Amino acid sequence: MIDTLIEKIKEKNAPVCVGLDPVADFIPEHIKEKAFGKKGQNAEALAEAFLEFNKRIIDCVYDLVPAVKPQIAMYEELGVSGIDAYIRTCAYAKNKGLVVIGDVKRGDIGSTSRAYANAHIGKVNIEGKEISTFDADFATVNPYMGSDGIDEFLKCCSEYDKGIFVLVKTSNPSSAELQDLKVGDDTIYEIVAKKVNEWGSGLKGRSGYSRVGAVVGATYPEIGKKLRKLMPDTYFLVPGYGAQGASGKDLKEYFNVDGLGAVINSSRGIIAAYKKDEYSSFGEEAFGDAARQATVDMIKDLRDHCTGN
Amino acid sequence: MIDTLIEKIKEKNAPVCVGLDPVADFIPEHIKEKAFGKKGQNAEALAEAFLEFNKRIIDCVYDLVPAVKPQIAMYEELGVSGIDAYIRTCAYAKNKGLVVIGDVKRGDIGSTSRAYANAHIGKVNIEGKEISTFDADFATVNPYMGSDGIDEFLKCCSEYDKGIFVLVKTSNPSSAELQDLKVGDDTIYEIVAKKVNEWGSGLKGRSGYSRVGAVVGATYPEIGKKLRKLMPDTYFLVPGYGAQGASGKDLKEYFNVDGLGAVINSSRGIIAAYKKDEYSSFGEEAFGDAARQATVDMIKDLRDHCTGN
Repeated sequence: MIDTLIEKIKEKNAPVCVGLDPVADFIPEHIKEKAFGKKGQNAEALAEAFLEFNKRIIDCVYDLVPAVKPQIAMYEELGVSGIDAYIRTCAYAKNKGLVVIGDVKRGDIGSTSRAYANAHIGKVNIEGKEISTFDADFATVNPYMGSDGIDEFLKCCSEYDKGIFVLVKTSNPSSAELQDLKVGDDTIYEIVAKKVNEWGSGLKGRSGYSRVGAVVGATYPEIGKKLRKLMPDTYFLVPGYGAQGASGKDLKEYFNVDGLGAVINSSRGIIAAYKKDEYSSFGEEAFGDAARQATVDMIKDLRDHCTGN
Repeated sequence: MIDTLIEKIKEKNAPVCVGLDPVADFIPEHIKEKAFGKKGQNAEALAEAFLEFNKRIIDCVYDLVPAVKPQIAMYEELGVSGIDAYIRTCAYAKNKGLVVIGDVKRGDIGSTSRAYANAHIGKVNIEGKEISTFDADFATVNPYMGSDGIDEFLKCCSEYDKGIFVLVKTSNPSSAELQDLKVGDDTIYEIVAKKVNEWGSGLKGRSGYSRVGAVVGATYPEIGKKLRKLMPDTYFLVPGYGAQGASGKDLKEYFNVDGLGAVINSSRGIIAAYKKDEYSSFGEEAFGDAARQATVDMIKDLRDHCTGN
């Protein structure tokens, strides 16, 4: 799957991932009114509104970008109908040829870790019959519990040609509290980076990149540069572009000289573009067109500063 | 909620939590046959079997223990119907007067963290109407992203009198890979323990214990002892009893001199007791009675070695 991701990045000349993190405030009134009118003021209606919103966003960007990253928390918040909307969002995106990165940040051990891995990127065995639950192409994973929390995901990467992105250095201000602590000469994020190399060493694709990627926040360019050198064969999933403050000029060093090695995510900056002054002329009804224009602009920014035209 | 947990622990004289982590292999044939017969060989049927199984376990232990801890991964694996079974399990347990610890190990930032916190221990706002999605009393939380991953949970602890247990030192062998690393004189688990004290400092209950607890594995008694001293006002949620190898004699130092301070979890050791030689005479049909006997034995073990009679 890492090879498929790379092929699609090359084909579209766009190392960009659109984060599908719907919240009620982003959803245009006409979509909410329709859903609430039909189902009442409840979680099921909002979940339906999320799905309608996502479909329109996907329709407007699928030819421009290689991947989307639905954030499961936004759907989980709505319980059963939210999870249903998450599954349908993943399926709709895959059907449009997009790579789906399930942003789930799961991390547990033993049979629990196996359940998460099987659910998100593997198959679930029901009395001998195999089913796919979420069927994402990649999942994000938390490393705090060590290899026991990763091994079952590695098995799925190998068996089903899937991928993971392990949290290494996250984009938020307080990521420093743990991740920047120094153990001898290395920070925790460097130690996790070395583990990522180790976990991915037997899982390289034809491209030479590993199925085990790393989450490296866009908001710490110096750290991104250091981690790029430390993990040359590791793809980076980079959150923090746009709303969190980073732009193309901060991100050149996240890429290898081949112009590959990173996929930059933007969520709010794209899906809620119509709410920004810059794109407000599109109006609320045309939120998808605003998202498309924001995607075009982001791709240009990255080509200008990071990957060349 | 920490005070409610403590009251129930005192009332039942049992610092025990039953882990509701169903997997297909634990479910007796008569339950599976009924569910698969009715719904076919699918996730919906297995989820129904999980719920039936859990209800019977709850019926057989609710008068003995203060709390249950459903592990969401096992339900998430089955998608929409699994999540429905998780919600119904939580509700059934609460209805029987049990404290529900949602073992979700979520950890994210910003609006995503808020979505998780609201979903699991808070309220979700749907166009001005507040709903409860999972409505657990406590949730487990991963600290890798620092305070940004905890703050929204703290708000829910305060606003809705709920609680969290932050992963400090987990019970698995590879927990050492990150958690035991030394930063100056302190290990990572000690640094996280100090953060737990800090996060919980404004959130004490009448009991003097904080709404911010810690997950401390039963499999490292020396570390448990050290952490007990470092976090005197913090309740410990202790996994690793039974199937993972720890027993009452290892756990005395996890408790304070008041006999409080820890709630010990057992999952497989209780819910799959009927599969162990020790309890096999109950037979598969009477799996609930086997679970009850295993619970009685565990409580005795802890009274004998940890909390006194």
